[in-house]
Amino acid sequence: MAKSKKKKDTEFSVADALRVPAGPVRVEDFDPGAAPAYPGEGKDDAPAQMAAMAPELSDLQERLYAAGRDNPDSPRLLLMLQGLDTSGKGGVIRHAVGMVDPQGIDLTAFKVPTAEERAHHYLWRIRKALPAPGMIGIFDRSHYEDVLVVRVDELVSMEEIPRRFDEINAFEAELADQGITLIKCFLNVSHEEQKERLLERLRDPEKHWKYNPGDVDVRMKWTDYMDAYSDVLTHCNTERAPWFVVPADRKWYRNWAVARLMLEHLRALDLGWPAADFDVTGEIARVDAT
Amino acid sequence: MAKSKKKKDTEFSVADALRVPAGPVRVEDFDPGAAPAYPGEGKDDAPAQMAAMAPELSDLQERLYAAGRDNPDSPRLLLMLQGLDTSGKGGVIRHAVGMVDPQGIDLTAFKVPTAEERAHHYLWRIRKALPAPGMIGIFDRSHYEDVLVVRVDELVSMEEIPRRFDEINAFEAELADQGITLIKCFLNVSHEEQKERLLERLRDPEKHWKYNPGDVDVRMKWTDYMDAYSDVLTHCNTERAPWFVVPADRKWYRNWAVARLMLEHLRALDLGWPAADFDVTGEIARVDAT
Repeated sequence: MAKSKKKKDTEFSVADALRVPAGPVRVEDFDPGAAPAYPGEGKDDAPAQMAAMAPELSDLQERLYAAGRDNPDSPRLLLMLQGLDTSGKGGVIRHAVGMVDPQGIDLTAFKVPTAEERAHHYLWRIRKALPAPGMIGIFDRSHYEDVLVVRVDELVSMEEIPRRFDEINAFEAELADQGITLIKCFLNVSHEEQKERLLERLRDPEKHWKYNPGDVDVRMKWTDYMDAYSDVLTHCNTERAPWFVVPADRKWYRNWAVARLMLEHLRALDLGWPAADFDVTGEIARVDAT
Repeated sequence: MAKSKKKKDTEFSVADALRVPAGPVRVEDFDPGAAPAYPGEGKDDAPAQMAAMAPELSDLQERLYAAGRDNPDSPRLLLMLQGLDTSGKGGVIRHAVGMVDPQGIDLTAFKVPTAEERAHHYLWRIRKALPAPGMIGIFDRSHYEDVLVVRVDELVSMEEIPRRFDEINAFEAELADQGITLIKCFLNVSHEEQKERLLERLRDPEKHWKYNPGDVDVRMKWTDYMDAYSDVLTHCNTERAPWFVVPADRKWYRNWAVARLMLEHLRALDLGWPAADFDVTGEIARVDAT
Protein backbone atom coordinates (compact mmCIF):
# COMPACT_ATOMS: atom_id res chain seq x y z
CA MET A 1 0.00 0.00 0.00
CA ALA A 2 2.80 2.38 0.90
CA LYS A 3 4.48 1.67 -2.43
CA SER A 4 1.34 2.32 -4.40
CA LYS A 5 0.76 5.56 -2.52
CA LYS A 6 4.26 6.78 -3.20
CA LYS A 7 3.92 5.95 -6.90
CA LYS A 8 0.71 7.91 -7.04
CA ASP A 9 2.20 10.96 -5.35
CA THR A 10 5.28 11.12 -7.48
CA GLU A 11 4.14 9.88 -10.84
CA PHE A 12 0.58 11.01 -11.33
CA SER A 13 1.10 14.68 -10.71
CA VAL A 14 -0.71 15.89 -13.81
CA ALA A 15 -3.27 13.09 -13.91
CA ASP A 16 -4.16 13.90 -10.31
CA ALA A 17 -4.37 17.61 -11.01
CA LEU A 18 -6.56 17.26 -14.11
CA ARG A 19 -8.76 14.29 -13.20
CA VAL A 20 -12.40 15.31 -12.89
CA PRO A 21 -13.70 14.73 -9.35
CA ALA A 22 -16.58 12.30 -8.86
CA GLY A 23 -20.07 13.73 -8.72
CA PRO A 24 -21.85 16.55 -10.54
CA VAL A 25 -19.57 19.05 -12.25
CA ARG A 26 -19.95 21.91 -14.74
CA VAL A 27 -17.44 22.85 -17.44
CA GLU A 28 -17.49 26.35 -15.94
CA ASP A 29 -15.91 24.92 -12.75
CA PHE A 30 -12.63 24.51 -14.61
CA ASP A 31 -10.29 27.37 -15.52
CA PRO A 32 -9.24 27.22 -19.22
CA GLY A 33 -6.29 29.49 -18.52
CA ALA A 34 -4.75 27.53 -15.66
CA ALA A 35 -1.54 25.49 -15.81
CA PRO A 36 -1.84 22.93 -12.98
CA ALA A 37 1.22 20.87 -12.00
CA TYR A 38 3.40 22.55 -14.62
CA PRO A 39 6.93 22.31 -13.25
CA GLY A 40 8.49 25.22 -15.15
CA GLU A 41 8.02 28.95 -15.37
CA GLY A 42 5.70 29.24 -18.36
CA LYS A 43 5.67 29.55 -22.12
CA ASP A 44 9.37 30.29 -22.45
CA ASP A 45 10.56 27.05 -20.93
CA ALA A 46 7.80 24.89 -22.42
CA PRO A 47 9.96 23.64 -25.32
CA ALA A 48 12.60 22.54 -22.80
CA GLN A 49 9.94 20.89 -20.62
CA MET A 50 8.63 19.00 -23.68
CA ALA A 51 12.13 17.97 -24.72
CA ALA A 52 12.88 16.74 -21.20
CA MET A 53 10.05 14.20 -21.47
CA ALA A 54 10.98 12.94 -24.94
CA PRO A 55 13.57 10.25 -24.14
CA GLU A 56 11.45 8.54 -21.46
CA LEU A 57 8.30 8.79 -23.56
CA SER A 58 10.16 7.24 -26.47
CA ASP A 59 11.60 4.45 -24.31
CA LEU A 60 8.25 3.57 -22.74
CA GLN A 61 6.46 3.60 -26.09
CA GLU A 62 9.04 1.19 -27.45
CA ARG A 63 8.52 -1.13 -24.46
CA LEU A 64 4.76 -1.04 -25.08
CA TYR A 65 5.32 -1.85 -28.75
CA ALA A 66 7.77 -4.66 -27.97
CA ALA A 67 5.34 -6.16 -25.46
CA GLY A 68 2.58 -6.24 -28.05
CA ARG A 69 4.47 -7.95 -30.80
CA ASP A 70 3.61 -11.54 -30.00
CA ASN A 71 1.16 -11.12 -27.16
CA PRO A 72 -2.49 -10.34 -27.92
CA ASP A 73 -3.09 -9.73 -24.18
CA SER A 74 -0.47 -7.03 -23.80
CA PRO A 75 -1.56 -3.55 -22.73
CA ARG A 76 -2.82 -0.85 -25.05
CA LEU A 77 -3.23 2.86 -24.58
CA LEU A 78 -6.03 4.94 -26.05
CA LEU A 79 -5.87 8.72 -25.96
CA MET A 80 -9.23 10.29 -26.70
CA LEU A 81 -9.37 13.96 -27.61
CA GLN A 82 -12.59 15.91 -27.31
CA GLY A 83 -13.13 19.66 -27.42
CA LEU A 84 -14.82 22.44 -29.34
CA ASP A 85 -13.40 23.95 -32.54
CA THR A 86 -9.99 25.59 -32.01
CA SER A 87 -9.50 23.82 -28.67
CA GLY A 88 -6.46 22.20 -30.23
CA LYS A 89 -7.08 18.54 -30.96
CA GLY A 90 -4.91 18.86 -34.05
CA GLY A 91 -2.24 20.82 -32.21
CA VAL A 92 -2.01 18.14 -29.53
CA ILE A 93 -1.58 15.43 -32.15
CA ARG A 94 1.08 17.43 -33.97
CA HIS A 95 3.09 18.43 -30.92
CA ALA A 96 2.44 15.85 -28.18
CA VAL A 97 1.61 12.67 -30.14
CA GLY A 98 4.26 13.74 -32.66
CA MET A 99 6.91 13.10 -29.99
CA VAL A 100 6.33 9.36 -30.33
CA ASP A 101 7.52 6.93 -33.05
CA PRO A 102 4.84 6.94 -35.79
CA GLN A 103 5.14 3.12 -35.94
CA GLY A 104 3.53 2.89 -32.51
CA ILE A 105 0.64 5.27 -33.22
CA ASP A 106 -2.77 4.30 -34.58
CA LEU A 107 -4.64 7.52 -35.30
CA THR A 108 -8.33 7.77 -36.18
CA ALA A 109 -10.20 11.00 -36.85
CA PHE A 110 -13.95 10.51 -36.51
CA LYS A 111 -15.84 12.72 -38.93
CA VAL A 112 -19.55 13.09 -39.62
CA PRO A 113 -20.62 9.42 -39.94
CA THR A 114 -20.71 7.95 -43.44
CA ALA A 115 -23.80 6.20 -44.77
CA GLU A 116 -22.26 2.85 -43.85
CA GLU A 117 -21.45 4.05 -40.33
CA ARG A 118 -24.95 5.43 -39.86
CA ALA A 119 -26.36 2.05 -40.79
CA HIS A 120 -24.67 0.56 -37.71
CA HIS A 121 -24.78 1.18 -33.94
CA TYR A 122 -22.74 4.28 -33.04
CA LEU A 123 -20.10 2.16 -31.28
CA TRP A 124 -19.49 0.04 -34.40
CA ARG A 125 -16.95 2.39 -35.96
CA ILE A 126 -15.32 2.92 -32.56
CA ARG A 127 -14.77 -0.81 -32.02
CA LYS A 128 -13.27 -1.11 -35.50
CA ALA A 129 -10.71 1.58 -34.66
CA LEU A 130 -9.45 0.21 -31.35
CA PRO A 131 -5.66 0.00 -31.20
CA ALA A 132 -3.89 -3.34 -31.60
CA PRO A 133 -1.79 -4.72 -28.72
CA GLY A 134 1.31 -2.65 -28.17
CA MET A 135 -0.12 0.39 -29.93
CA ILE A 136 -1.09 3.83 -28.72
CA GLY A 137 -4.46 4.62 -30.25
CA ILE A 138 -5.37 8.25 -30.80
CA PHE A 139 -9.00 9.23 -31.27
CA ASP A 140 -9.58 12.69 -32.70
CA ARG A 141 -13.20 12.90 -31.51
CA SER A 142 -14.91 9.68 -30.44
CA HIS A 143 -18.18 8.04 -29.43
CA TYR A 144 -18.78 11.11 -27.24
CA GLU A 145 -19.90 12.97 -30.35
CA ASP A 146 -22.94 10.71 -30.15
CA VAL A 147 -23.98 12.37 -26.89
CA LEU A 148 -22.69 15.86 -27.79
CA VAL A 149 -23.35 17.13 -31.32
CA VAL A 150 -26.10 14.56 -31.68
CA ARG A 151 -27.78 15.96 -28.56
CA VAL A 152 -27.27 19.65 -29.34
CA ASP A 153 -28.58 19.23 -32.88
CA GLU A 154 -31.44 17.05 -31.61
CA LEU A 155 -30.60 14.10 -33.84
CA VAL A 156 -31.85 11.76 -31.09
CA SER A 157 -34.44 12.27 -28.38
CA MET A 158 -33.29 13.64 -25.00
CA GLU A 159 -34.48 10.41 -23.36
CA GLU A 160 -31.92 8.50 -25.39
CA ILE A 161 -28.95 10.40 -23.89
CA PRO A 162 -28.91 8.86 -20.34
CA ARG A 163 -29.31 5.44 -21.94
CA ARG A 164 -26.23 6.12 -24.06
CA PHE A 165 -24.28 7.27 -20.98
CA ASP A 166 -24.90 3.84 -19.41
CA GLU A 167 -23.98 2.12 -22.65
CA ILE A 168 -20.75 4.12 -22.95
CA ASN A 169 -19.80 3.38 -19.34
CA ALA A 170 -20.35 -0.33 -19.93
CA PHE A 171 -18.33 -0.18 -23.18
CA GLU A 172 -15.42 1.60 -21.53
CA ALA A 173 -15.42 -0.89 -18.64
CA GLU A 174 -15.20 -3.64 -21.27
CA LEU A 175 -12.19 -1.88 -22.82
CA ALA A 176 -10.51 -1.63 -19.41
CA ASP A 177 -11.11 -5.39 -18.95
CA GLN A 178 -9.29 -5.96 -22.24
CA GLY A 179 -6.24 -4.09 -20.98
CA ILE A 180 -6.91 -0.83 -22.80
CA THR A 181 -5.98 2.18 -20.69
CA LEU A 182 -8.19 5.10 -21.64
CA ILE A 183 -6.99 8.69 -21.35
CA LYS A 184 -10.07 10.81 -22.00
CA CYS A 185 -9.14 14.46 -22.47
CA PHE A 186 -11.53 17.35 -22.75
CA LEU A 187 -9.56 20.28 -24.15
CA ASN A 188 -11.14 23.22 -22.38
CA VAL A 189 -10.94 26.44 -24.38
CA SER A 190 -12.73 29.59 -23.20
CA HIS A 191 -15.46 31.37 -25.16
CA GLU A 192 -13.20 34.40 -25.51
CA GLU A 193 -10.12 32.49 -26.64
CA GLN A 194 -12.13 30.59 -29.24
CA LYS A 195 -13.20 33.92 -30.73
CA GLU A 196 -9.59 35.07 -30.92
CA ARG A 197 -8.54 31.85 -32.64
CA LEU A 198 -11.34 31.98 -35.19
CA LEU A 199 -10.45 35.60 -36.00
CA GLU A 200 -6.79 34.63 -36.29
CA ARG A 201 -7.71 32.02 -38.89
CA LEU A 202 -9.72 34.58 -40.80
CA ARG A 203 -7.04 37.29 -40.71
CA ASP A 204 -4.21 35.03 -41.90
CA PRO A 205 -4.62 33.78 -45.51
CA GLU A 206 -2.34 30.83 -44.66
CA LYS A 207 -4.94 29.72 -42.14
CA HIS A 208 -8.09 30.17 -44.25
CA TRP A 209 -8.11 26.46 -45.09
CA LYS A 210 -8.60 25.70 -41.39
CA TYR A 211 -11.69 27.86 -41.18
CA ASN A 212 -15.19 26.62 -41.82
CA PRO A 213 -18.23 28.92 -41.72
CA GLY A 214 -20.01 26.12 -39.85
CA ASP A 215 -17.66 26.80 -36.90
CA VAL A 216 -19.55 30.01 -36.12
CA ASP A 217 -22.88 28.20 -36.25
CA VAL A 218 -21.54 25.77 -33.66
CA ARG A 219 -20.14 28.65 -31.59
CA MET A 220 -23.63 30.16 -31.42
CA LYS A 221 -24.73 27.00 -29.59
CA TRP A 222 -22.01 27.47 -26.93
CA THR A 223 -24.28 27.13 -23.87
CA ASP A 224 -25.91 23.99 -25.29
CA TYR A 225 -22.46 22.47 -25.71
CA MET A 226 -21.47 23.49 -22.18
CA ASP A 227 -24.57 21.69 -20.89
CA ALA A 228 -23.83 18.62 -22.98
CA TYR A 229 -20.16 18.46 -21.93
CA SER A 230 -21.06 19.07 -18.28
CA ASP A 231 -23.38 16.05 -18.38
CA VAL A 232 -20.72 13.92 -20.03
CA LEU A 233 -18.12 14.91 -17.42
CA THR A 234 -20.64 14.12 -14.69
CA HIS A 235 -22.16 10.86 -15.94
CA CYS A 236 -19.33 9.21 -17.88
CA ASN A 237 -16.55 9.88 -15.39
CA THR A 238 -15.92 6.43 -13.94
CA GLU A 239 -13.09 5.18 -11.80
CA ARG A 240 -11.77 2.96 -14.58
CA ALA A 241 -12.27 5.52 -17.32
CA PRO A 242 -12.03 8.98 -15.78
CA TRP A 243 -12.13 12.29 -17.62
CA PHE A 244 -9.28 14.78 -17.59
CA VAL A 245 -10.06 18.43 -18.22
CA VAL A 246 -7.03 19.97 -19.92
CA PRO A 247 -6.90 23.78 -19.76
CA ALA A 248 -6.47 24.76 -23.41
CA ASP A 249 -6.24 28.54 -23.56
CA ARG A 250 -2.47 28.30 -23.43
CA LYS A 251 -1.28 26.03 -26.19
CA TRP A 252 2.11 25.33 -24.63
CA TYR A 253 0.46 24.07 -21.45
CA ARG A 254 -2.16 22.02 -23.30
CA ASN A 255 0.48 20.19 -25.36
CA TRP A 256 2.75 19.63 -22.39
CA ALA A 257 -0.11 18.34 -20.22
CA VAL A 258 -1.29 15.77 -22.77
CA ALA A 259 2.26 14.52 -23.39
CA ARG A 260 2.69 14.25 -19.63
CA LEU A 261 -0.60 12.34 -19.27
CA MET A 262 0.67 9.82 -21.84
CA LEU A 263 3.96 9.56 -19.97
CA GLU A 264 2.33 9.02 -16.57
CA HIS A 265 -0.04 6.36 -17.89
CA LEU A 266 2.79 4.56 -19.70
CA ARG A 267 4.88 4.58 -16.52
CA ALA A 268 2.00 3.04 -14.60
CA LEU A 269 2.06 0.01 -16.92
CA ASP A 270 5.48 -0.82 -15.46
CA LEU A 271 6.68 -2.44 -18.68
CA GLY A 272 9.79 -4.57 -18.96
CA TRP A 273 11.34 -5.94 -22.14
CA PRO A 274 10.12 -9.25 -23.61
CA ALA A 275 12.43 -12.18 -22.88
CA ALA A 276 14.14 -13.88 -25.82
CA ASP A 277 12.24 -16.92 -27.10
CA PHE A 278 15.39 -18.28 -28.79
CA ASP A 279 18.80 -19.54 -27.68
CA VAL A 280 20.84 -16.34 -27.40
CA THR A 281 24.26 -18.00 -27.19
CA GLY A 282 23.44 -20.30 -30.09
CA GLU A 283 22.32 -17.38 -32.22
CA ILE A 284 25.47 -15.38 -31.45
CA ALA A 285 27.49 -18.35 -32.70
CA ARG A 286 25.37 -18.60 -35.86
CA VAL A 287 25.81 -14.91 -36.66
CA ASP A 288 29.52 -15.06 -35.84
CA ALA A 289 29.93 -17.85 -38.39
CA THR A 290 28.58 -15.72 -41.27
CA MET B 1 15.20 26.47 -68.79
CA ALA B 2 17.59 28.57 -66.76
CA LYS B 3 15.15 28.66 -63.89
CA SER B 4 14.61 24.94 -63.94
CA LYS B 5 18.35 24.34 -64.04
CA LYS B 6 18.96 26.61 -61.07
CA LYS B 7 16.24 24.88 -59.08
CA LYS B 8 17.81 21.55 -59.78
CA ASP B 9 21.24 22.67 -58.69
CA THR B 10 20.19 24.23 -55.45
CA GLU B 11 17.30 22.12 -54.30
CA PHE B 12 17.92 18.59 -55.42
CA SER B 13 21.35 18.19 -53.94
CA VAL B 14 20.67 14.91 -52.16
CA ALA B 15 18.26 13.55 -54.74
CA ASP B 16 20.88 14.18 -57.41
CA ALA B 17 23.62 12.58 -55.35
CA LEU B 18 21.66 9.45 -54.50
CA ARG B 19 19.65 8.86 -57.68
CA VAL B 20 20.64 5.64 -59.39
CA PRO B 21 22.05 6.31 -62.88
CA ALA B 22 20.26 4.82 -65.86
CA GLY B 23 21.54 1.52 -67.18
CA PRO B 24 22.88 -1.64 -65.58
CA VAL B 25 24.08 -1.23 -62.00
CA ARG B 26 25.14 -3.50 -59.16
CA VAL B 27 24.49 -2.88 -55.46
CA GLU B 28 28.24 -3.29 -54.96
CA ASP B 29 28.77 -0.10 -57.02
CA PHE B 30 27.43 1.97 -54.12
CA ASP B 31 29.39 2.68 -50.92
CA PRO B 32 27.26 1.95 -47.82
CA GLY B 33 29.58 4.07 -45.67
CA ALA B 34 29.48 7.25 -47.77
CA ALA B 35 27.70 10.50 -46.85
CA PRO B 36 27.07 12.26 -50.18
CA ALA B 37 25.87 15.88 -50.16
CA TYR B 38 25.89 16.04 -46.37
CA PRO B 39 26.43 19.71 -45.55
CA GLY B 40 27.85 19.32 -42.04
CA GLU B 41 30.89 17.72 -40.46
CA GLY B 42 29.51 14.35 -39.46
CA LYS B 43 27.74 12.51 -36.65
CA ASP B 44 28.18 15.28 -34.09
CA ASP B 45 26.29 17.92 -36.00
CA ALA B 46 23.65 15.56 -37.41
CA PRO B 47 21.04 16.43 -34.73
CA ALA B 48 21.49 20.12 -35.60
CA GLN B 49 21.26 19.34 -39.34
CA MET B 50 18.02 17.41 -38.73
CA ALA B 51 16.60 20.20 -36.56
CA ALA B 52 17.46 22.77 -39.22
CA MET B 53 15.17 21.00 -41.70
CA ALA B 54 12.24 20.60 -39.30
CA PRO B 55 10.44 23.96 -39.71
CA GLU B 56 10.42 23.86 -43.51
CA LEU B 57 9.48 20.17 -43.61
CA SER B 58 6.62 20.89 -41.23
CA ASP B 59 5.45 23.90 -43.24
CA LEU B 60 5.53 22.03 -46.57
CA GLN B 61 3.76 19.01 -45.15
CA GLU B 62 1.00 21.29 -43.88
CA ARG B 63 0.64 22.88 -47.33
CA LEU B 64 0.36 19.42 -48.87
CA TYR B 65 -2.29 18.47 -46.32
CA ALA B 66 -4.21 21.71 -46.82
CA ALA B 67 -4.14 21.25 -50.60
CA GLY B 68 -5.60 17.76 -50.29
CA ARG B 69 -8.54 18.60 -48.07
CA ASP B 70 -11.13 19.29 -50.73
CA ASN B 71 -9.25 18.40 -53.88
CA PRO B 72 -9.03 14.76 -54.98
CA ASP B 73 -6.50 15.75 -57.67
CA SER B 74 -4.01 17.35 -55.30
CA PRO B 75 -0.52 15.87 -55.08
CA ARG B 76 0.53 12.97 -52.90
CA LEU B 77 3.89 11.75 -51.79
CA LEU B 78 4.84 8.12 -51.31
CA LEU B 79 8.07 7.19 -49.58
CA MET B 80 8.98 3.55 -50.16
CA LEU B 81 11.58 1.95 -47.92
CA GLN B 82 13.36 -1.20 -48.97
CA GLY B 83 16.44 -2.80 -47.49
CA LEU B 84 17.74 -5.90 -45.79
CA ASP B 85 17.31 -6.59 -42.07
CA THR B 86 18.96 -3.97 -39.86
CA SER B 87 19.30 -1.54 -42.77
CA GLY B 88 17.11 0.80 -40.74
CA LYS B 89 13.63 1.02 -42.22
CA GLY B 90 12.25 1.35 -38.70
CA GLY B 91 14.90 3.87 -37.69
CA VAL B 92 14.10 6.05 -40.69
CA ILE B 93 10.41 6.03 -39.81
CA ARG B 94 11.12 6.84 -36.18
CA HIS B 95 13.61 9.63 -36.82
CA ALA B 96 12.90 11.10 -40.26
CA VAL B 97 9.18 10.44 -40.77
CA GLY B 98 8.73 11.22 -37.06
CA MET B 99 9.64 14.84 -37.83
CA VAL B 100 6.31 15.29 -39.59
CA ASP B 101 2.81 15.78 -38.12
CA PRO B 102 1.32 12.29 -37.61
CA GLN B 103 -1.97 13.59 -39.05
CA GLY B 104 -0.32 13.87 -42.46
CA ILE B 105 1.28 10.40 -42.45
CA ASP B 106 -0.27 7.20 -43.78
CA LEU B 107 2.03 4.35 -42.82
CA THR B 108 1.75 0.78 -44.07
CA ALA B 109 4.09 -2.05 -43.14
CA PHE B 110 3.85 -4.91 -45.61
CA LYS B 111 4.38 -8.26 -43.91
CA VAL B 112 4.30 -11.79 -45.25
CA PRO B 113 1.03 -11.76 -47.25
CA THR B 114 -2.09 -12.99 -45.47
CA ALA B 115 -4.31 -15.67 -46.99
CA GLU B 116 -6.62 -12.94 -48.31
CA GLU B 117 -3.70 -11.05 -49.85
CA ARG B 118 -2.31 -14.22 -51.44
CA ALA B 119 -5.68 -14.81 -53.06
CA HIS B 120 -5.23 -11.56 -55.01
CA HIS B 121 -2.68 -10.14 -57.47
CA TYR B 122 0.43 -8.94 -55.61
CA LEU B 123 -0.40 -5.29 -56.42
CA TRP B 124 -3.86 -5.56 -54.83
CA ARG B 125 -2.71 -4.81 -51.30
CA ILE B 126 -0.43 -2.06 -52.59
CA ARG B 127 -3.28 -0.26 -54.37
CA LYS B 128 -5.40 -0.48 -51.22
CA ALA B 129 -2.67 1.27 -49.23
CA LEU B 130 -2.01 4.23 -51.53
CA PRO B 131 -2.10 7.57 -49.69
CA ALA B 132 -5.13 9.85 -49.97
CA PRO B 133 -4.72 13.33 -51.51
CA GLY B 134 -2.66 15.58 -49.25
CA MET B 135 -1.07 12.68 -47.40
CA ILE B 136 2.48 11.40 -47.24
CA GLY B 137 2.31 7.64 -47.60
CA ILE B 138 5.08 5.55 -46.07
CA PHE B 139 5.63 1.99 -47.25
CA ASP B 140 7.76 -0.16 -44.98
CA ARG B 141 8.56 -2.73 -47.67
CA SER B 142 6.42 -2.73 -50.81
CA HIS B 143 5.56 -4.56 -54.04
CA TYR B 144 9.32 -4.98 -54.53
CA GLU B 145 9.21 -7.86 -52.06
CA ASP B 146 7.40 -9.69 -54.87
CA VAL B 147 10.53 -9.57 -57.00
CA LEU B 148 13.00 -9.93 -54.09
CA VAL B 149 12.18 -12.44 -51.35
CA VAL B 150 9.78 -14.18 -53.75
CA ARG B 151 12.63 -14.61 -56.24
CA VAL B 152 15.33 -15.59 -53.75
CA ASP B 153 13.06 -18.16 -52.10
CA GLU B 154 11.89 -19.36 -55.52
CA LEU B 155 8.21 -18.80 -54.83
CA VAL B 156 7.72 -17.92 -58.50
CA SER B 157 9.59 -19.03 -61.59
CA MET B 158 12.58 -16.98 -62.77
CA GLU B 159 10.73 -16.29 -66.04
CA GLU B 160 8.06 -14.47 -64.07
CA ILE B 161 10.49 -11.84 -62.71
CA PRO B 162 11.09 -9.75 -65.87
CA ARG B 163 7.35 -9.83 -66.53
CA ARG B 164 6.80 -8.37 -63.05
CA PHE B 165 9.43 -5.70 -63.68
CA ASP B 166 7.39 -4.49 -66.67
CA GLU B 167 4.20 -4.67 -64.65
CA ILE B 168 5.73 -2.66 -61.79
CA ASN B 169 7.06 -0.02 -64.19
CA ALA B 170 3.61 0.36 -65.74
CA PHE B 171 2.01 0.53 -62.29
CA GLU B 172 4.42 3.22 -61.10
CA ALA B 173 3.88 5.27 -64.27
CA GLU B 174 0.16 5.06 -63.51
CA LEU B 175 0.82 6.39 -60.00
CA ALA B 176 2.86 9.28 -61.41
CA ASP B 177 -0.06 10.06 -63.76
CA GLN B 178 -2.31 10.28 -60.70
CA GLY B 179 -0.04 12.88 -59.11
CA ILE B 180 1.72 10.55 -56.70
CA THR B 181 5.40 11.39 -56.35
CA LEU B 182 7.33 8.23 -55.52
CA ILE B 183 10.53 8.34 -53.46
CA LYS B 184 11.94 4.82 -53.70
CA CYS B 185 14.77 4.32 -51.21
CA PHE B 186 17.04 1.33 -50.99
CA LEU B 187 18.75 1.49 -47.61
CA ASN B 188 22.17 0.10 -48.39
CA VAL B 189 23.80 -1.57 -45.40
CA SER B 190 27.07 -3.48 -45.78
CA HIS B 191 27.51 -7.17 -45.05
CA GLU B 192 29.88 -6.32 -42.22
CA GLU B 193 27.69 -3.67 -40.62
CA GLN B 194 24.69 -6.00 -40.72
CA LYS B 195 26.67 -8.55 -38.73
CA GLU B 196 27.55 -5.92 -36.13
CA ARG B 197 23.93 -4.86 -35.79
CA LEU B 198 22.64 -8.40 -35.43
CA LEU B 199 25.24 -9.09 -32.74
CA GLU B 200 24.31 -5.86 -30.98
CA ARG B 201 20.69 -7.02 -30.83
CA LEU B 202 21.79 -10.33 -29.39
CA ARG B 203 24.12 -8.84 -26.79
CA ASP B 204 21.63 -6.33 -25.43
CA PRO B 205 18.63 -7.94 -23.66
CA GLU B 206 16.61 -4.76 -24.34
CA LYS B 207 17.01 -5.51 -28.05
CA HIS B 208 16.25 -9.22 -28.04
CA TRP B 209 12.67 -8.52 -29.14
CA LYS B 210 14.02 -7.06 -32.37
CA TYR B 211 15.95 -10.20 -33.22
CA ASN B 212 14.51 -13.05 -35.23
CA PRO B 213 16.49 -16.25 -35.89
CA GLY B 214 15.14 -16.08 -39.44
CA ASP B 215 17.32 -12.98 -39.96
CA VAL B 216 20.42 -15.18 -40.08
CA ASP B 217 18.82 -17.50 -42.60
CA VAL B 218 18.19 -14.48 -44.82
CA ARG B 219 21.72 -13.22 -44.23
CA MET B 220 23.05 -16.54 -45.55
CA LYS B 221 21.39 -15.71 -48.87
CA TRP B 222 23.23 -12.36 -49.08
CA THR B 223 24.57 -12.80 -52.63
CA ASP B 224 21.18 -13.90 -53.92
CA TYR B 225 19.69 -10.72 -52.45
CA MET B 226 22.44 -8.59 -53.98
CA ASP B 227 21.61 -10.10 -57.37
CA ALA B 228 17.91 -9.52 -56.87
CA TYR B 229 18.36 -5.91 -55.71
CA SER B 230 20.83 -5.20 -58.52
CA ASP B 231 18.23 -6.32 -61.07
CA VAL B 232 15.56 -4.18 -59.42
CA LEU B 233 17.82 -1.11 -59.42
CA THR B 234 18.61 -1.77 -63.08
CA HIS B 235 15.19 -2.66 -64.48
CA CYS B 236 12.76 -0.66 -62.32
CA ASN B 237 14.70 2.59 -62.31
CA THR B 238 12.59 4.80 -64.57
CA GLU B 239 12.70 8.51 -65.11
CA ARG B 240 9.34 9.05 -63.46
CA ALA B 241 10.00 6.64 -60.62
CA PRO B 242 13.75 6.51 -60.01
CA TRP B 243 15.54 4.63 -57.24
CA PHE B 244 17.66 6.31 -54.62
CA VAL B 245 20.39 4.29 -52.94
CA VAL B 246 20.80 5.63 -49.41
CA PRO B 247 24.09 4.69 -47.72
CA ALA B 248 22.94 3.12 -44.45
CA ASP B 249 26.03 2.14 -42.51
CA ARG B 250 25.94 5.44 -40.69
CA LYS B 251 22.53 5.87 -39.10
CA TRP B 252 22.80 9.63 -38.70
CA TYR B 253 23.45 10.03 -42.42
CA ARG B 254 20.71 7.59 -43.44
CA ASN B 255 18.07 9.43 -41.37
CA TRP B 256 19.21 12.84 -42.51
CA ALA B 257 19.29 11.81 -46.18
CA VAL B 258 15.74 10.41 -46.18
CA ALA B 259 14.38 13.49 -44.39
CA ARG B 260 16.18 15.61 -46.95
CA LEU B 261 14.74 13.56 -49.84
CA MET B 262 11.25 14.22 -48.49
CA LEU B 263 12.05 17.92 -48.16
CA GLU B 264 13.42 18.24 -51.69
CA HIS B 265 10.46 16.43 -53.23
CA LEU B 266 7.98 18.52 -51.25
CA ARG B 267 9.73 21.72 -52.35
CA ALA B 268 9.45 20.61 -55.98
CA LEU B 269 5.65 20.51 -55.67
CA ASP B 270 5.76 24.30 -55.22
CA LEU B 271 2.68 24.35 -53.02
CA GLY B 272 0.72 27.45 -52.09
CA TRP B 273 -2.14 27.73 -49.62
CA PRO B 274 -5.73 27.03 -50.74
CA ALA B 275 -7.81 30.16 -51.32
CA ALA B 276 -10.82 30.79 -49.09
CA ASP B 277 -14.09 29.52 -50.56
CA PHE B 278 -16.11 31.80 -48.27
CA ASP B 279 -16.56 35.55 -47.78
CA VAL B 280 -13.70 36.45 -45.43
CA THR B 281 -14.97 39.93 -44.48
CA GLY B 282 -18.47 38.60 -43.91
CA GLU B 283 -17.16 35.81 -41.69
CA ILE B 284 -15.06 38.23 -39.62
CA ALA B 285 -18.22 40.24 -38.99
CA ARG B 286 -20.13 37.10 -38.00
CA VAL B 287 -17.45 36.01 -35.53
CA ASP B 288 -17.13 39.55 -34.16
CA ALA B 289 -20.85 39.57 -33.40
CA THR B 290 -20.62 36.50 -31.14
